[in-house]
Amino acid sequence: MSIPRIRLGMIGGGQDAFIGAVHRMASRLDDRYAFVAGALSSTPERSIASGLALGLDPARSYPDYPAMLEGEAARSDGIEAVAIVTPNHVHVPAAKACLAAGMHVICDKPLAASLAEARELEAVAAGSDRIVAVTYNYTGYPMVRQARAMVAAGEIGKVRVVQVEYAQGWLATKLEDSGQKQAAWRTDPARSGAGGALGDIGTHAFNLAEFVSGGEVESVACDLQATVPGRRLDDNAQMLLRFKGGARGGLWASQIAVGHENGLRLRIYGETGSLEWLQEEPNALRVSRLGDTTRIVTRAGGGVGTEAARVTRIPSGHPEGYLEAFATIYTEVARAIDARRAGMPIPAEVRFPTIMDGVRGMAFIEAAVRSSTSGGRWTAVA
Amino acid sequence: MSIPRIRLGMIGGGQDAFIGAVHRMASRLDDRYAFVAGALSSTPERSIASGLALGLDPARSYPDYPAMLEGEAARSDGIEAVAIVTPNHVHVPAAKACLAAGMHVICDKPLAASLAEARELEAVAAGSDRIVAVTYNYTGYPMVRQARAMVAAGEIGKVRVVQVEYAQGWLATKLEDSGQKQAAWRTDPARSGAGGALGDIGTHAFNLAEFVSGGEVESVACDLQATVPGRRLDDNAQMLLRFKGGARGGLWASQIAVGHENGLRLRIYGETGSLEWLQEEPNALRVSRLGDTTRIVTRAGGGVGTEAARVTRIPSGHPEGYLEAFATIYTEVARAIDARRAGMPIPAEVRFPTIMDGVRGMAFIEAAVRSSTSGGRWTAVA
Amino acid sequence: MSIPRIRLGMIGGGQDAFIGAVHRMASRLDDRYAFVAGALSSTPERSIASGLALGLDPARSYPDYPAMLEGEAARSDGIEAVAIVTPNHVHVPAAKACLAAGMHVICDKPLAASLAEARELEAVAAGSDRIVAVTYNYTGYPMVRQARAMVAAGEIGKVRVVQVEYAQGWLATKLEDSGQKQAAWRTDPARSGAGGALGDIGTHAFNLAEFVSGGEVESVACDLQATVPGRRLDDNAQMLLRFKGGARGGLWASQIAVGHENGLRLRIYGETGSLEWLQEEPNALRVSRLGDTTRIVTRAGGGVGTEAARVTRIPSGHPEGYLEAFATIYTEVARAIDARRAGMPIPAEVRFPTIMDGVRGMAFIEAAVRSSTSGGRWTAVA
Amino acid sequence: MSIPRIRLGMIGGGQDAFIGAVHRMASRLDDRYAFVAGALSSTPERSIASGLALGLDPARSYPDYPAMLEGEAARSDGIEAVAIVTPNHVHVPAAKACLAAGMHVICDKPLAASLAEARELEAVAAGSDRIVAVTYNYTGYPMVRQARAMVAAGEIGKVRVVQVEYAQGWLATKLEDSGQKQAAWRTDPARSGAGGALGDIGTHAFNLAEFVSGGEVESVACDLQATVPGRRLDDNAQMLLRFKGGARGGLWASQIAVGHENGLRLRIYGETGSLEWLQEEPNALRVSRLGDTTRIVTRAGGGVGTEAARVTRIPSGHPEGYLEAFATIYTEVARAIDARRAGMPIPAEVRFPTIMDGVRGMAFIEAAVRSSTSGGRWTAVA
Repeated sequence: MSIPRIRLGMIGGGQDAFIGAVHRMASRLDDRYAFVAGALSSTPERSIASGLALGLDPARSYPDYPAMLEGEAARSDGIEAVAIVTPNHVHVPAAKACLAAGMHVICDKPLAASLAEARELEAVAAGSDRIVAVTYNYTGYPMVRQARAMVAAGEIGKVRVVQVEYAQGWLATKLEDSGQKQAAWRTDPARSGAGGALGDIGTHAFNLAEFVSGGEVESVACDLQATVPGRRLDDNAQMLLRFKGGARGGLWASQIAVGHENGLRLRIYGETGSLEWLQEEPNALRVSRLGDTTRIVTRAGGGVGTEAARVTRIPSGHPEGYLEAFATIYTEVARAIDARRAGMPIPAEVRFPTIMDGVRGMAFIEAAVRSSTSGGRWTAVA
Repeated sequence: MSIPRIRLGMIGGGQDAFIGAVHRMASRLDDRYAFVAGALSSTPERSIASGLALGLDPARSYPDYPAMLEGEAARSDGIEAVAIVTPNHVHVPAAKACLAAGMHVICDKPLAASLAEARELEAVAAGSDRIVAVTYNYTGYPMVRQARAMVAAGEIGKVRVVQVEYAQGWLATKLEDSGQKQAAWRTDPARSGAGGALGDIGTHAFNLAEFVSGGEVESVACDLQATVPGRRLDDNAQMLLRFKGGARGGLWASQIAVGHENGLRLRIYGETGSLEWLQEEPNALRVSRLGDTTRIVTRAGGGVGTEAARVTRIPSGHPEGYLEAFATIYTEVARAIDARRAGMPIPAEVRFPTIMDGVRGMAFIEAAVRSSTSGGRWTAVA
Repeated sequence: MSIPRIRLGMIGGGQDAFIGAVHRMASRLDDRYAFVAGALSSTPERSIASGLALGLDPARSYPDYPAMLEGEAARSDGIEAVAIVTPNHVHVPAAKACLAAGMHVICDKPLAASLAEARELEAVAAGSDRIVAVTYNYTGYPMVRQARAMVAAGEIGKVRVVQVEYAQGWLATKLEDSGQKQAAWRTDPARSGAGGALGDIGTHAFNLAEFVSGGEVESVACDLQATVPGRRLDDNAQMLLRFKGGARGGLWASQIAVGHENGLRLRIYGETGSLEWLQEEPNALRVSRLGDTTRIVTRAGGGVGTEAARVTRIPSGHPEGYLEAFATIYTEVARAIDARRAGMPIPAEVRFPTIMDGVRGMAFIEAAVRSSTSGGRWTAVA
Repeated sequence: MSIPRIRLGMIGGGQDAFIGAVHRMASRLDDRYAFVAGALSSTPERSIASGLALGLDPARSYPDYPAMLEGEAARSDGIEAVAIVTPNHVHVPAAKACLAAGMHVICDKPLAASLAEARELEAVAAGSDRIVAVTYNYTGYPMVRQARAMVAAGEIGKVRVVQVEYAQGWLATKLEDSGQKQAAWRTDPARSGAGGALGDIGTHAFNLAEFVSGGEVESVACDLQATVPGRRLDDNAQMLLRFKGGARGGLWASQIAVGHENGLRLRIYGETGSLEWLQEEPNALRVSRLGDTTRIVTRAGGGVGTEAARVTRIPSGHPEGYLEAFATIYTEVARAIDARRAGMPIPAEVRFPTIMDGVRGMAFIEAAVRSSTSGGRWTAVA
């Protein structure tokens, strides 16, 4: 028997939005969701128009999210879960409202506009049995799962050094002055919070480094820069990392690195081996062991373990990409929601980023900003 | 206003089938199809069970395809199009029945078990206004479209040499003896037709070479081998190509090439430039011009033209993969069906492989087999 | 105690010659030769001027090679070995004269202007105890030695398929009309012999394929083309290969492949594994085994065997290149000459291409030309 | 007419030494030096034995360097230049003695055991007309020259970010305890100075970053670690960089990065473009420009400028490597010595690292150590 699809609503993600379309494709791929309601834009008119353009029932294309939550709560076939894909400053108010309406939440990252706000949501979520997922989507890639499993299994020994970088070039000029919508809100402290590149992509890098290494960053020494004259938030973030237990690391997040598209790269060096993964070639993991040759472990190829295999759809050599990894987050959340529906515990193998990851991302942003402001002082991430 | 989804049925593609699941994911990604009916297996019991497992309405999970076509034709909300994803020998009978029932057809490749049979279907299709698409899915990749457009625009000058290869290793041992279903039918002449690797992957390579180069292979000089002892069809095919107009080429298709997963690679050399594309790294196209540096053109990056851009979903650096390319074929077919629904011509920019590609693939298989049998004689593909 | 350097003369290789300078650098690198005499050009004046420009003793900068052989034979410190780096048609006459004068010969490839001429030299050499080496220099790369050793040790099982290609783009236009010297003689049958790209680079590919695979090509089915209008020799050669014992293969040699610089690539597929080596990234060998991950074996890295290690100079990660590989051929020949000087057998581990490789290269050229002329008929290489 | 070879002596570099052999090969490649005298080891017996093994005239194989300098000064054909390839603590005393004896000096890096000592040598050199070169050999690579020239010509605009890393894995275990000679002195503060990985490879990375970017590092914020328990010097160095003029950067040097062989990688991001170069694939330079495709500029290929071309020996596609780059430093120095011999100024296009680079490397080491000791404080490099 097949399991009924989860009825999904969306806040934000209307016309011109990049990430809303991604969430919708991701929710469709494995056929575990039915997208049936939306409050897709910040103005009622565009909100409703976007819903119609996407084929929503006109009755379920709402002018704003309070209306959606109210309208759906009143239906017997109302939505069960909500994807929040607005600019950052809306995340927490919307998520609180969704939880209050009894809905599961899938929220884009970073979780909040400030750490304090994130902790408020954490407190609310703690009193609810609803799922709150945060789409640190890169953890959905099979080879990221593979890497995490290998580190956890001790295959590279105790971790010594973690190098992570996330380099893009699309903000090398003052794109926000052109009216480009993505650039405008991402460089606006009122909508993005305290981090520019730091919040938009630095938090992905940070999350990935902790997810795969299994370590916890204790403190950072950071140098933030708004390189492009007149920009109001950092567009280039460099920092040194110290992990609990003594591992060291470096993190570089930049949106002015001309020539890079979406260059998220993670390298982890342990006592007896190392791993390298690059988001732009996501189907391979480079694995080295002391005194041995370097091996290329491929998604679904020989030598891949069960953690990767369970989130893989097609044979090796048939590339999976960004949307598949994003879909995996959605499908993992669906497994969790299914468990909740059935009154069962979430299966142990199900992995997705939760509100704790979201809070931790905010702690990272604030520690980095404080360190940079104080002349690079080592600053605790907490 | 959004366009209603196309109601889709499927023949074949039940449990254990690789390609059926691919077709379903591909049909879902862009939200242009609703998969509502199926005759998913060669036995009635498994057919029905597969349909239920996939969440089909029990009334629309049929024991065999004649029943499906009859049942659906009787419904006001019956299916409009059928995906045929069976072993090769079923393709033509099923497609004929679908056309007779007034349904559009999306058929897996190779089109038929023989050229004669393919031509029969071509004749039937010629008398119908229904779409017949053949899923030479690699033509759905944006960078393949980009390459095609560049050649067509003369950016590498007159084509001189075409090198194409499709190397896999999964049949390096006698896997068919293990009961593995994919291996069993692909190495069985009764279900696959005259080509082994030649039909399964060689036809993809051939189709891709003609699609991108814009050329037509005039004749082939071929050496087929069943390398693994006891295998009944070729697992390694080498051939030289001569194109109309004088270009030369080489084609290698192998399923015993240990170390390769799905290594489809195309290189085209013209008078003033060259192109290289590799399916396993599909988001890049390597472009060289006489006397200049080599450039890496990326999907959605600088320098990409409109043909690639119109079949791209997400920004550069966010890898699209096999499923997205496959989905593009489905979505292109949907555009064609939409046009038919509206009594409009199919828009000129819409591209998908048609029955003509399917017939040509069969002509290629038969020419290659004849050439190899006759000691490598140059043999016309016609 | 150190061993005295071998006194080396050179025929050809004066100003404007590419390969003469390469031979001289190669002979110097490991300090086993002293270049002391030369007849460096086809005209006496340029010959002498070239010698002086290179710092030769004026008394040992000769107008032509007969003069050099006579002059040097008369000296107590006369040359012991001669490098022949002229256009092809001079190779055999010069080599015969050197052997007659009692000198060892290091001759560039292809060995001769025809197979018949090569066999004549073979007969002369058979009656001499002098070394005759032919600079199929790519066999000097450590990772080529590693590949050969791995195949010989059965690490990929019985060889099934050999794919070799050598692609260059420098003759994509009619460069010979510009007066460029390298292009002029290489496209002139009177100076090159029957093969264009076939002789210049196809023989390298052929030699490499046999050297590494340990196999012998039994017959070829070939399609040669002079692509550039007016060119007098082939610039693009495609062929299928059949090896003794049943292995199959493909060989492509082209000098019109825009975008390629010196793209010699060899791939060998056996029953249980495969190898890939690319001359432009020569310090790595890609090794795959059935059911396992692909490994990158690096020169001087973990997992490298003794055959590679004995011809390696510097640690892994410090790239060796073309000149080092060429120097290895010189140094291997020096070891053979040292053995001859001492009346000892040549040590078993010493490897360099000999007159037999040279003869075989000529047989390959002639078989390929015959096959192409006869419409691609399978033609024995013998 | 050819120019007489420069008579070269060597201090250090006897048996078991890696870098001495490299210097000798480098000096031979372009035939501009004659290696004729040596004091090759720290004990008289091994010193003399090494000289004989290398074929030196027994009269010129000296027990120690004072004896060599005295003996050679007394000869009419005495050495003109000396290569110093000892552990670091011997560099300055030996260099002073060479200068006092009127000889040119080619010294390995880092220049000294301390900044103070380096400055002493600088003062001595300032009063001499002899050349003092320091073998920051990576500046000899053609594509490094190309990169430098492109930045200098403004091809990537004003430099914004410099990322440099030098990762090796050979000291991931406590190799110094095994008696391995290279590891022993490099991890011994008495012979290496204050920097471990920092001095051995970090200075290379620093030099390369400044050489190519044309910028000057103003201050560093550093975190050094002796990762392997019991190690006496750093084996992993992370730091942030600030350049004069506002550019930022990161530098990572590690000898415990399992899986890396000699991973020196430089990336420079400017306002309008970026460059990437990797020592392990040294024949290519990756060049990106705002809004354009990424290009692969190759050594001797299309699009290469004169600075690279003048230090290139062989055509593109024929890889040059580490020894060729090292030889270029030697040959550049030879050009300078030739100019001195002739009483002419050193030609403007000649480039090699001088004592100023050597002093700067020491300033870098000391600044990094001070920063790390003081908790990562931004520390001036001066």
